[in-house]
Amino acid sequence: MDELIKEINQFRDERDWRQFHNAKDLALSVSLEASELLENFQWKTSEEAIADDLENIKDEIADVMIYSLMLADDLGLSVEEIIRNKIKKNGKKYTIEESKGKYGKEGN
Amino acid sequence: MDELIKEINQFRDERDWRQFHNAKDLALSVSLEASELLENFQWKTSEEAIADDLENIKDEIADVMIYSLMLADDLGLSVEEIIRNKIKKNGKKYTIEESKGKYGKEGN
Amino acid sequence: MDELIKEINQFRDERDWRQFHNAKDLALSVSLEASELLENFQWKTSEEAIADDLENIKDEIADVMIYSLMLADDLGLSVEEIIRNKIKKNGKKYTIEESKGKYGKEGN
Amino acid sequence: MDELIKEINQFRDERDWRQFHNAKDLALSVSLEASELLENFQWKTSEEAIADDLENIKDEIADVMIYSLMLADDLGLSVEEIIRNKIKKNGKKYTIEESKGKYGKEGN
Repeated sequence: MDELIKEINQFRDERDWRQFHNAKDLALSVSLEASELLENFQWKTSEEAIADDLENIKDEIADVMIYSLMLADDLGLSVEEIIRNKIKKNGKKYTIEESKGKYGKEGN
Repeated sequence: MDELIKEINQFRDERDWRQFHNAKDLALSVSLEASELLENFQWKTSEEAIADDLENIKDEIADVMIYSLMLADDLGLSVEEIIRNKIKKNGKKYTIEESKGKYGKEGN
Repeated sequence: MDELIKEINQFRDERDWRQFHNAKDLALSVSLEASELLENFQWKTSEEAIADDLENIKDEIADVMIYSLMLADDLGLSVEEIIRNKIKKNGKKYTIEESKGKYGKEGN
Repeated sequence: MDELIKEINQFRDERDWRQFHNAKDLALSVSLEASELLENFQWKTSEEAIADDLENIKDEIADVMIYSLMLADDLGLSVEEIIRNKIKKNGKKYTIEESKGKYGKEGN
């Protein structure tokens, strides 16, 4: 992961792009890329979307992750740490006993 | 990264949740979580949003990444590979020569 | 429509809220409300979502439209005019002859 | 408004497109169009975005409204009624006394 973040930052710095990056527009960009990912599934089933353009799905998942990693890095966050913390929180919110095989809408 | 994906899958499997996960709803969920991240910045500057609730920003970045990692894993994709491929593509689209210090809207 | 916009503006002005409204955050808010609408359909079929919470679906469609109307009004746009213009554009892009019974992904 | 909805439905019916429209994909489409609207503001101030491409902003607001109107119509809803109801709810949630000149993040 650290290696990936280094490569992403190298890409930004070689182009002097960090000056344009602020947290609000990076969060906005994560949302825009997530929509471009979702667009692959518009009017389609999962199977149809995957059959139609898995290459674009790959690229859009990558874009969502790249912007998320840049935002986390600019905020001085360790992605692994915030993911582990969130999994822990989710584990308390959705205990195995209460959640096994059950799926509500709230956040899961 | 592989370790994180293992922990995320363990979380799903302990709860028998994979049966509910399909690519379309996972992509939809990435988009919903990206909006919850963006909501932190609604009517605010980057600085105000970070000062107001960095904890929630952390959690929402984590949720975006967790859903993206689940989707990638369900599609049999290596996240590191698709990110590296996308960085390569971006490098060809935005050459250092042409892009240094310049920032257009198209996709960057 | 004009009557609705009047009522929405009256709501804003009674609370002195227009000072907080700028086009970027209004567009951001349209997107956030659209996600809250979409959240009703997460992990669900259309039928399940409608059965589960039609009331919330109504409220979120309304919120999307309210923010869209505020943005259009702040930009001095006639909503009816921009909708009619867009329908005309779409009619040229998707002629009846070529589009009848056929549905692509591009924008329709 | 009724006139607009008639024209939108005529557009759909001339192309036999209603068969493809379901509430989940229409809600998804509202969200995608809202993102295309928001994309106009990526890395920009409100003023820069408006100066750069007001025409596209007009078209995207129109697309958000067209999909919202189709969804509402397919659900048998009166757009004016759901908007008026939501304004009423907001008026109770944000009383003039408590809200005048104050702006929180929760939903306003």
